[in-house]
Amino acid sequence: MTTPIENLKKLLGEVADLHYTAALLNWDHQVNMPPGGARPRAMQLATISRIAHDNFVSEEMGQAIESAKQAVGDLDADSDDARLVKKTDHDYLKEIKVPSDWVADFSRITALAHGEWEKAREQSDFSIFEPHAKEIIGLRQQYADFFKPYDHPYDPLLDDYEPGMKSAQVKSVFDALKPFQIELVRAILEEGEPVDDGILHLNYEIQKQWDFGVEVIKDIGYDFENGRQDKSTHPFTTSFGITDVRITTRFDPNFLNTAIFGTLHEAGHAMYEQGIRTELDRTPLAAGTSLGMHESQSRMWENLVGRSKTFWKAYLPKLKEYFPDQVSDVNVDDFYRAINKVERSFIRVEADEATYNLHIMLRFDLEMAMMVGSLAVKDLPEAWDEKFEHFFGVRPPDDAKGVLQDVHWSSGLVGYFPTYALGNLIASQLWERIHEDLPDLQAQIEQASFDNLLEWLREHIHQHGSKYEPMELLNRVTGSGLEAGPYMRYLETKFKEIYDL
Amino acid sequence: MTTPIENLKKLLGEVADLHYTAALLNWDHQVNMPPGGARPRAMQLATISRIAHDNFVSEEMGQAIESAKQAVGDLDADSDDARLVKKTDHDYLKEIKVPSDWVADFSRITALAHGEWEKAREQSDFSIFEPHAKEIIGLRQQYADFFKPYDHPYDPLLDDYEPGMKSAQVKSVFDALKPFQIELVRAILEEGEPVDDGILHLNYEIQKQWDFGVEVIKDIGYDFENGRQDKSTHPFTTSFGITDVRITTRFDPNFLNTAIFGTLHEAGHAMYEQGIRTELDRTPLAAGTSLGMHESQSRMWENLVGRSKTFWKAYLPKLKEYFPDQVSDVNVDDFYRAINKVERSFIRVEADEATYNLHIMLRFDLEMAMMVGSLAVKDLPEAWDEKFEHFFGVRPPDDAKGVLQDVHWSSGLVGYFPTYALGNLIASQLWERIHEDLPDLQAQIEQASFDNLLEWLREHIHQHGSKYEPMELLNRVTGSGLEAGPYMRYLETKFKEIYDL
Repeated sequence: MTTPIENLKKLLGEVADLHYTAALLNWDHQVNMPPGGARPRAMQLATISRIAHDNFVSEEMGQAIESAKQAVGDLDADSDDARLVKKTDHDYLKEIKVPSDWVADFSRITALAHGEWEKAREQSDFSIFEPHAKEIIGLRQQYADFFKPYDHPYDPLLDDYEPGMKSAQVKSVFDALKPFQIELVRAILEEGEPVDDGILHLNYEIQKQWDFGVEVIKDIGYDFENGRQDKSTHPFTTSFGITDVRITTRFDPNFLNTAIFGTLHEAGHAMYEQGIRTELDRTPLAAGTSLGMHESQSRMWENLVGRSKTFWKAYLPKLKEYFPDQVSDVNVDDFYRAINKVERSFIRVEADEATYNLHIMLRFDLEMAMMVGSLAVKDLPEAWDEKFEHFFGVRPPDDAKGVLQDVHWSSGLVGYFPTYALGNLIASQLWERIHEDLPDLQAQIEQASFDNLLEWLREHIHQHGSKYEPMELLNRVTGSGLEAGPYMRYLETKFKEIYDL
Repeated sequence: MTTPIENLKKLLGEVADLHYTAALLNWDHQVNMPPGGARPRAMQLATISRIAHDNFVSEEMGQAIESAKQAVGDLDADSDDARLVKKTDHDYLKEIKVPSDWVADFSRITALAHGEWEKAREQSDFSIFEPHAKEIIGLRQQYADFFKPYDHPYDPLLDDYEPGMKSAQVKSVFDALKPFQIELVRAILEEGEPVDDGILHLNYEIQKQWDFGVEVIKDIGYDFENGRQDKSTHPFTTSFGITDVRITTRFDPNFLNTAIFGTLHEAGHAMYEQGIRTELDRTPLAAGTSLGMHESQSRMWENLVGRSKTFWKAYLPKLKEYFPDQVSDVNVDDFYRAINKVERSFIRVEADEATYNLHIMLRFDLEMAMMVGSLAVKDLPEAWDEKFEHFFGVRPPDDAKGVLQDVHWSSGLVGYFPTYALGNLIASQLWERIHEDLPDLQAQIEQASFDNLLEWLREHIHQHGSKYEPMELLNRVTGSGLEAGPYMRYLETKFKEIYDL
């Protein structure tokens, strides 16, 4: 006799298998695939994705969810099963509201737009991408309307990446953060003691960078029995199940930061997925609860741990063993200042901690305005440059270094950017909480000991997967919702010391 | 307006995508997967395979085949479309005759049997594997009965790997071959001039073996734009589309043959798949026409090319550049004798050309007898050892080196072994034909020039994929069916010279 919950899990397990399989098709594409594989691979991915979608929105699934809803009526609302049914129901209702014609249009238009965006960026000419961007914003407005009523048309988009989050919440937190970060960056660049990061730009042999990175992420707790590392052009983390979570890293022989902080970042993502309770395997709960919460984990290991002076007290001596010719003469203070150098970069992905969120808030403001129609796509480049000047005091030299730099919009991803900044904020909120529980943490990090930190994250965050929505989880752990205060305190303390302000 | 043929191709394309995806799941399993991946991977593979099967035997597919059959009525029976419909119809009728209960039993029992076989082989104790082998033979007898009437219960099994072939044909050819090969091996080992292959057992650095192998297979025409090479425990070739055909190789630092001949073998398989006309892509015609024809391609490059004296006239000088310390003093004649040393190996996969088919004929005789019930599974070890002694003059020391050595039966593969020997026979038949068309071929090989040979294979064999059944294709190319004569002539000439008989 199969119970309604077992039946639902069976159907969801098959959908999970299909998603994991699609992830493997993607991973292989970026890590191994020879050039000839591109054409057949696109068709394989389309077929697997279509079957996953069809299976998830099938009548059989709808009935299984209804039966399961009745069956969990008697259960504790916080039980795994009750939460599984709740999340599945939410995702199902969201997915069936989107007509398949819209999905087909969206696939077709974004596939085309991606190529045109590449061309536009290459030629630094927004007009090539403009008609496609216009179509995409139009489609995204339609998409939002499938979920009426809403407070703001941005909300249904944001909900895809950050379940339960409203744009008003994000706006309110960003409004507190924005003037602070603008002023901090101004002060650093105009009044700060200049930082020399020449040491990071020497020649660092790639194999040794690889070996050092592997040593570090083994130390912090990335599990190679249940994962592996490869090289790829764009670093990413992907999961084929809780026990097979892989990362990729890229290497720059002339810039040390690229690999080491990229590797820590991806390992942070991966440890989240590796830490999910195995009972949740092959269900929609077996993944990080949101992109923002995910980014809080990657940023915590990359920045709060990896770019701290404490961390380098432990690891600079090890780095000197790998690269005696390059770093044997540098001391921890200077190395710490170098890896935290603040710059007016035009490019988001190259931004340091002090400037990063400004890049995000710029995009968030523009997306919000486009979604309500107060900013026309044709006026986007000018709006970008103006806002950039307001934030950073300089204007991008061209569209390639401005409005055309990111792939996201060409792929139809609108509402995705804020999650990067949310990750920074959440990480700092958790970080304050962790130090209350582990007052000894900095001393542990200085001894290259991360067991207690990882254990804390496993217990409070990782194990739950998507069982709780991100803000609910944050509240359970910290007792408060999203806040800018901890991140502001963190930035202020750190950079006033580094720049002697 | 979609035509019936287009509709059929659309459905078949999706099934092909699923099969290619399953192949990637398998490839990754053997090449990259961390230990933790095993459990989720098994479920992913089961789900994808089940969907591929369900889609292929669906009513929709049945109707599409019926409509397409009517639509191709007016076409040339040798057109791609007519052949596609014919083959699809054959495969479909075969697949729907197998009840899903049987498929489920077969999966369950072989999954279990595989582990028990591993244990049995480790302990060299057939009794551990015996009850599972008995179940598997029983299931295979049932399977054959789904396809009654047949001439022999072995025929429906053989047809899965060698479409259209009957066991009577195989038996008749083997009957001609068997006494000849037994006598040849006896003469070599008792009367031949001993061969010293010590040179092959020196230390050969793996990276250099890899580089030499890559140079060789690039020369013969394996296309790295549409493929790649990796390492794995068991070498294999796999395809994710005509333009992404990958090989794996294994390396033994103390035996040169393993990698070089393994690499040539897999490249031979892969070039067959890479040579299929792209018009056949994503259809059941986009694969080699049978395991025997496939093996003819791998064996041709491995043995008829790779183990010839002519080939090493070109490549021994190159090998000396890679391994000056090991081979600089050896001459082509001695090297050629070393790589062709004949031995009484108990293990099939280590067998040389002169003995290889005897290992196959032994398995074929035993499988035939078990399928008709004249040999009971419990008597298999004794029957194996007796036959081995009859063929080779010695008895295996234990079951691990005898009846338990191969994985095939534990996976339910019965009727598969003969295709290895058919590959040797077909390769020799083609080889004689090729030399008629390319009288200059040996001189070309001596110059490391393989373009004409590959072009001949592409034109006569590769491009057609599975458009023609294997024996039909052989007939079209050579004007005759399966024959033992060419292989016997080849073995006799080669080994009488080497062993000075």
